[in-house]
Amino acid sequence: MITENSNAKDEGQIRQLIDDWAAALRAKDIKRLTSNYAPDILLFDVPPPLQSQGSDSYRKSWEARFSTFQGPIGCEIRQLSITAGDDVAFSHCLNRISGTTTNGEKIDLRVRATVCYRKIDGEWMVTHEHASVPVEMETGKAALNLEA
Amino acid sequence: MITENSNAKDEGQIRQLIDDWAAALRAKDIKRLTSNYAPDILLFDVPPPLQSQGSDSYRKSWEARFSTFQGPIGCEIRQLSITAGDDVAFSHCLNRISGTTTNGEKIDLRVRATVCYRKIDGEWMVTHEHASVPVEMETGKAALNLEA
Repeated sequence: MITENSNAKDEGQIRQLIDDWAAALRAKDIKRLTSNYAPDILLFDVPPPLQSQGSDSYRKSWEARFSTFQGPIGCEIRQLSITAGDDVAFSHCLNRISGTTTNGEKIDLRVRATVCYRKIDGEWMVTHEHASVPVEMETGKAALNLEA
Repeated sequence: MITENSNAKDEGQIRQLIDDWAAALRAKDIKRLTSNYAPDILLFDVPPPLQSQGSDSYRKSWEARFSTFQGPIGCEIRQLSITAGDDVAFSHCLNRISGTTTNGEKIDLRVRATVCYRKIDGEWMVTHEHASVPVEMETGKAALNLEA
């Protein structure tokens, strides 16, 4: 059974991780962005490939992405839900990512994010992350700025 | 701590759920497909909308999808990983979905799937599912048949 107290404490710790991640993204701070990612994290990310493994690969893809933005990035976490057991947890939310590219293009995306955690040596670590946008199957086109 | 025995037992129960789900999909058996979905399941699905809630909405979207296929659907679960605690668990895998549409078009998709579970009254139930395909952000086009 999940006791209510440990549940609330663990949920609070995970909420803190998510807030830190969003603050790091806004500040383009790669080190902070990846500070709670397990070394063997398995990623399903918005762009190809189908999957990638390792916090190094995650770091590189964000470095590349950060370099395409002028100035800071907007990141708003919406409709966050956290489910925490004693050692295993997951969260899901809708992220609004906004900003201006180095080409002057305005970006305003809605990304679905599911993040899965394990408590390792007493600390919650992200071992799996799945980020995506919906795709119209008839046309193969992404739907990038839907509202929930 | 996750004890090894309960861990193995819970992982086995979840593996059984996933096998049942895949068998139900192949047989286009909606009732079996949704038998372990919590009534308030929150879905991030491949096509729009951004999210949907409730096993009824999941059922309807699969009914509509099933009707676009001639005969049975192929579903192969690849690279499955299951992480189970006492009351909370998650799994991720790559699903190969194949078949022929009523228009005669051959389908052969690779879908990333993350499934999140809670043990409710002693039984593992799916409370969140995230299915997606990668999208090339430069073109807004989906990548539907990448190999991992």
